[in-house]
Amino acid sequence: MLFHVSDNGVWQKAIANIKNYLKDVDEGAVQIQVVANAGAVGSYYDKDLLDQMQTLSEESGVLFTACRNALQAFSLDVNLLPKFVEPVSGGITEIVNKQADGYIYIKP
Amino acid sequence: MLFHVSDNGVWQKAIANIKNYLKDVDEGAVQIQVVANAGAVGSYYDKDLLDQMQTLSEESGVLFTACRNALQAFSLDVNLLPKFVEPVSGGITEIVNKQADGYIYIKP
Amino acid sequence: MLFHVSDNGVWQKAIANIKNYLKDVDEGAVQIQVVANAGAVGSYYDKDLLDQMQTLSEESGVLFTACRNALQAFSLDVNLLPKFVEPVSGGITEIVNKQADGYIYIKP
Repeated sequence: MLFHVSDNGVWQKAIANIKNYLKDVDEGAVQIQVVANAGAVGSYYDKDLLDQMQTLSEESGVLFTACRNALQAFSLDVNLLPKFVEPVSGGITEIVNKQADGYIYIKP
Repeated sequence: MLFHVSDNGVWQKAIANIKNYLKDVDEGAVQIQVVANAGAVGSYYDKDLLDQMQTLSEESGVLFTACRNALQAFSLDVNLLPKFVEPVSGGITEIVNKQADGYIYIKP
Repeated sequence: MLFHVSDNGVWQKAIANIKNYLKDVDEGAVQIQVVANAGAVGSYYDKDLLDQMQTLSEESGVLFTACRNALQAFSLDVNLLPKFVEPVSGGITEIVNKQADGYIYIKP
């Protein structure tokens, strides 16, 4: 299951989506990945939501990823990404590949 | 076919999408479901668009659903939902399940 | 691969998405289509982004399409569409059909 976040304003909604969804599924039954691209990568450098993201990563295995093209476009240092966020070479490429692998796409 | 509406501002567009699509398909040939979650559930309590939704429901069999998590988050009473709107326990869970059943996903 | 653009404000992001994606795939390896509907068709009549779109069309074979319902709703003359943009009778119908054909859906 793939959450595509391309706008900083949608993160709060995306996090609520994931929390609610996790209530409905058995632990470990589903792999959830968040692909942040475009302006949405900025929130990885902002303390506001990081605690909630980190909890989702550590306690529920949600994979948070960041598009390197977007990091570059917004002059964000990939080395300063939070430890639980994984950079991917291209956000759209990642979305295409994961959908081809059977991941369900959701745009919060 | 699944329309995911997560923002009140997109309802007008979603309704136009559905009306236009219905012109292109044979009656009864397709099952259309709208899943409203997040702030979008508010429009179910607002008279502005309800007539158009109700017509789509009654005349074309469009299924309108509302995420219970969102209703709770916005303190909206599920018992006051319009008769033609069906609550679902989780909007995202509904979207995942229906996509797994073969529904095509569209975000207006 | 299908990019659904339903808002003028998202075009810049969509174009960057496509450019970045094209860096990751072999030339001719993928068919990319953009379906513009609702207000997003307006950008086809605005010089700002047309050069970039035309380059993507001519050099990378990206197919740009415009929903006729939207053109009509915004009183835009289909005959004044740029040469590289193809009108489709319904944007949503096009998205449904192409997804049924196996196209991956992305909402920038």
